[in-house]
Amino acid sequence: MKVCVIGVGLIGGSFALGLKESDPQVKIYGIDASKEHLEKAKDLKIIDETAALTEVSDADLVMISVPVNVAPEVLKQVLDLVQEKALVIDMGSTKASICEAVRDHPRRRNFLAAHPIAGTEFSGPEAAFQGLFEGKTTIICEVEKTAFPLQEKALEIFKNLGMRIRYMNPEAHDRHIAYVSHLSHISSFMLGKTVLEKEKNERDIFDLAGSGFASTVRLAKSSPAMWAPIFEQNKENVLEILTEYINNLSGFRTLLENNEYSEIFREMEQTNHIRKVLNGII
Amino acid sequence: MKVCVIGVGLIGGSFALGLKESDPQVKIYGIDASKEHLEKAKDLKIIDETAALTEVSDADLVMISVPVNVAPEVLKQVLDLVQEKALVIDMGSTKASICEAVRDHPRRRNFLAAHPIAGTEFSGPEAAFQGLFEGKTTIICEVEKTAFPLQEKALEIFKNLGMRIRYMNPEAHDRHIAYVSHLSHISSFMLGKTVLEKEKNERDIFDLAGSGFASTVRLAKSSPAMWAPIFEQNKENVLEILTEYINNLSGFRTLLENNEYSEIFREMEQTNHIRKVLNGII
Repeated sequence: MKVCVIGVGLIGGSFALGLKESDPQVKIYGIDASKEHLEKAKDLKIIDETAALTEVSDADLVMISVPVNVAPEVLKQVLDLVQEKALVIDMGSTKASICEAVRDHPRRRNFLAAHPIAGTEFSGPEAAFQGLFEGKTTIICEVEKTAFPLQEKALEIFKNLGMRIRYMNPEAHDRHIAYVSHLSHISSFMLGKTVLEKEKNERDIFDLAGSGFASTVRLAKSSPAMWAPIFEQNKENVLEILTEYINNLSGFRTLLENNEYSEIFREMEQTNHIRKVLNGII
Repeated sequence: MKVCVIGVGLIGGSFALGLKESDPQVKIYGIDASKEHLEKAKDLKIIDETAALTEVSDADLVMISVPVNVAPEVLKQVLDLVQEKALVIDMGSTKASICEAVRDHPRRRNFLAAHPIAGTEFSGPEAAFQGLFEGKTTIICEVEKTAFPLQEKALEIFKNLGMRIRYMNPEAHDRHIAYVSHLSHISSFMLGKTVLEKEKNERDIFDLAGSGFASTVRLAKSSPAMWAPIFEQNKENVLEILTEYINNLSGFRTLLENNEYSEIFREMEQTNHIRKVLNGII
């Protein structure tokens, strides 16, 4: 099987490693805007060959894992080039705009829109590891628009990577993911910003930070090149949930200003319910 | 050595287990407002005996780990009862009000104000474990107000638990801890509240949440009985940093509304600096 991976960072690189593990016969061509990333990915044996975009023309599988602002254009170029039986998957964190971008493309049936709920706060080929997708969920959007044999092929691949599948329409995907992923990144980035500003002259104060701070601020290490485009593409959903978050924080502040501690207690107690819904998430 | 642990939850229980590990001769008396917690702590062999507060009168060491709103009163009662050579340590997350409460107590020199930067989102005796304090920092406030031989005794105990020591005045402690701990809890509780409200009719949506959401919302599992009093006691510092956090989130929202993605990128890139300062925190 000839596979082209476009974007050899955390997601693309881990996908390549997982694929090689399940099928040693596979040959992986890496394509990336960064020559440095490509060389690194080859050194790390994540990819077998570095290649240009035209390489996709006789690929069996093309995996796109590039920032979501360039993904629609890359996908269109890929669909213009691929052979009839090729499966093209993109793995970006937003799905509405990419589905819309190729809605009327003659090769739409070659494309499967997916979003693996997997990742870390690190990026680039060095961050890739075999096993990233093990036990994780992948969301597939508009499955009915993908040719049936290619759906089957994709499911086989995801199964071999150890993933569970959920189906969703792109609009519902983008809305729910704004709630359970995109908002977390903003809360974490702004928490990091707030505390860094406050402690800018006292860097050793971070010795005092415990695992709680580390946990809430972890996502602030994430790549701006990946995340700024996600916020852009999912602007309306992100604005809506961010506004509710700010309202809740302001409400908490008002309770504290007014010494309403039993109400603060009650809000926290109700939110403890998150224990139950988080069971099953690592 | 006769030790009384008042409050046999996560902190008190873990302290008792650590102490037993380093000195099997120690005998630990548990004191707690909850009879159920006491029985549980005894069943789990965290404490040797259950006891009443009067038990502290001939103790060598008294460790107080109760919610910070009751700690000052408990501490005063303990200092009224203890013998001249007894060491009394409290482990609460706020230090200014407790230091102020016993400032003029005739037994002030028996007291050492400490705050171990250690914990988890769980509470109660079942959450206690040996090793919680290993490699962690404890902050000691107003060390000069504790009798020198009792300082030495306390350092020996913390050293045996594997802890590093930092000294700080109570006001600086409460301010910095508001930044690097208390704010994280509010951001996490309100994130949990926001998403739970949004998804209240779609509970299975949390299948979509990845490790990023789990990480940022983890502290929302924390005990309201512990945290409402902390926010109360550290109200001014918490209000100040919470206001800055809300301002930063509102600023981010404005950037997003105005499509200023390069500025969003720049802010995130600057905040990535947190990678460096977090090195060393787990």
